[in-house]
Amino acid sequence: MTLKIETLNPVRSFKGRGAETVVAAAREKGASRMVCASAGNLGQALTYSGTRRGLDVTVVAACTANPLKLRRITDLGAQVRLEGEDIEDARLLAREIAETEGAYLVEDSLDLATCEGAATIGLELVRDDPALDVVLVAVGGGAMASGVGYVVRSLAGHAQVIGVQPAGAPAMSLSWRRGTVVETDRIETIADGAAGRCPIPEVLDDLLVVLDDMTLVGEDSIKAGMRALHEHAGLVVEPSAALGIAAVLEQPERFAGRRVTTILCGSNVEPADFAQWVLEPSAGTSRR
Amino acid sequence: MTLKIETLNPVRSFKGRGAETVVAAAREKGASRMVCASAGNLGQALTYSGTRRGLDVTVVAACTANPLKLRRITDLGAQVRLEGEDIEDARLLAREIAETEGAYLVEDSLDLATCEGAATIGLELVRDDPALDVVLVAVGGGAMASGVGYVVRSLAGHAQVIGVQPAGAPAMSLSWRRGTVVETDRIETIADGAAGRCPIPEVLDDLLVVLDDMTLVGEDSIKAGMRALHEHAGLVVEPSAALGIAAVLEQPERFAGRRVTTILCGSNVEPADFAQWVLEPSAGTSRR
Repeated sequence: MTLKIETLNPVRSFKGRGAETVVAAAREKGASRMVCASAGNLGQALTYSGTRRGLDVTVVAACTANPLKLRRITDLGAQVRLEGEDIEDARLLAREIAETEGAYLVEDSLDLATCEGAATIGLELVRDDPALDVVLVAVGGGAMASGVGYVVRSLAGHAQVIGVQPAGAPAMSLSWRRGTVVETDRIETIADGAAGRCPIPEVLDDLLVVLDDMTLVGEDSIKAGMRALHEHAGLVVEPSAALGIAAVLEQPERFAGRRVTTILCGSNVEPADFAQWVLEPSAGTSRR
Repeated sequence: MTLKIETLNPVRSFKGRGAETVVAAAREKGASRMVCASAGNLGQALTYSGTRRGLDVTVVAACTANPLKLRRITDLGAQVRLEGEDIEDARLLAREIAETEGAYLVEDSLDLATCEGAATIGLELVRDDPALDVVLVAVGGGAMASGVGYVVRSLAGHAQVIGVQPAGAPAMSLSWRRGTVVETDRIETIADGAAGRCPIPEVLDDLLVVLDDMTLVGEDSIKAGMRALHEHAGLVVEPSAALGIAAVLEQPERFAGRRVTTILCGSNVEPADFAQWVLEPSAGTSRR
């Protein structure tokens, strides 16, 4: 199994790829302020890329967002606004701020620049292993899956691209199976980076074209995946980054003997959470 | 601070670089068997590189060697022989096996191919940051320090290269200060990858030319360095890989404001040891 590691950079997630693309586009359009809703990783990346180019950045997050990610965003120099119960509430406020205050709105996964940035991962995957059989991609909003899926579909048509979601946040998977947007009521997963309730129709349309399948994984498998990566690869990852490994753990026969790659998309996890989920063998129920 | 990460490869240490060089040289000379003494990382790397090219590999280790490393060597297909209290005893037996059984002897750090392999790290450091000020290199036998030191000295003469050893295994540092080989009686460090008692004269000669300084660090700083890398970089490393960070923690004023790089040279550490040294806040005295 090949691990594509996207955690060893200053923002500790793959989101820097999209953020660089977005910020370049925003500056071309003369923006001096940007706003986005984020579970935390896009917010960090956008702040890192934006403030380095003299842009003011506002990040809207849910009141339940990962405190570590929020601290890092503040440390990097953005203004953080907290709103509502989950990412969907934050998305509404971000849109409002963009309209009333004239900030450049970055909508993760809908803004094609966020997908194009993530797509560069796909270019590297195909360059490094043209014979790959399967790419397992975590799906939150869908930017990574649509970007990587598009590239792999185009350059390595023989390979399968499979989107993976937590069973506790299955909205995009349900939508993909149904072929139309299905919203859900609740988010019940530790994988905060891959947790949405309201799929964006345009992103669903893209995923219907570029993904071969979508699959769901349980919380225990996510923790087992994090544990395996810690023990066998020496890496701390956040739950979203372990979704691909979780899929292999749940369906070993499906992937046996194939050249499988998964993208370790982020490592922004509170040490206390990591300890509880991964390091304590008797770890029981999840905190969220 | 820049981290040069050498843990994310199949043998989880920088030793693969030297092993590839050594095995190529051994095959040119028609060898079918190889033997080396190793604390574990060279043994793994040589087995990985050698068995893939059809060579039989024997690794001699001390009876006190890291069991995880020995397991991995066996899993990779080498024969493991245990001998004596520490690496110096293992080196004697390896030489004997080479003579009596006609195996190609790889003496880490003495065999220039092991240094040349490690030197490629230096090429990458200078390519990626020509303006670097300081390179902190862990010193065990000295292959990495002499290889990297030679390259940095040659291509980035303005930069300082500083060797770091555990205070509990200071033989090469003492020798370097004295300008002649000083042997010690005991090894008292958790940094098994950087633990020797009997410096090789030829290696000392090279380090006298290519290092600007050598410094010692304490066991608590090594653990604190491992902890910092786990928390801030999301990486599991073995103690030897944290020596550079430990030096910065002990002498912050010396390195403040400078472009400092250190090489994270390996991550072969037993999970139980890692938990004891790094994850348990009340971790007391070291096991060894």
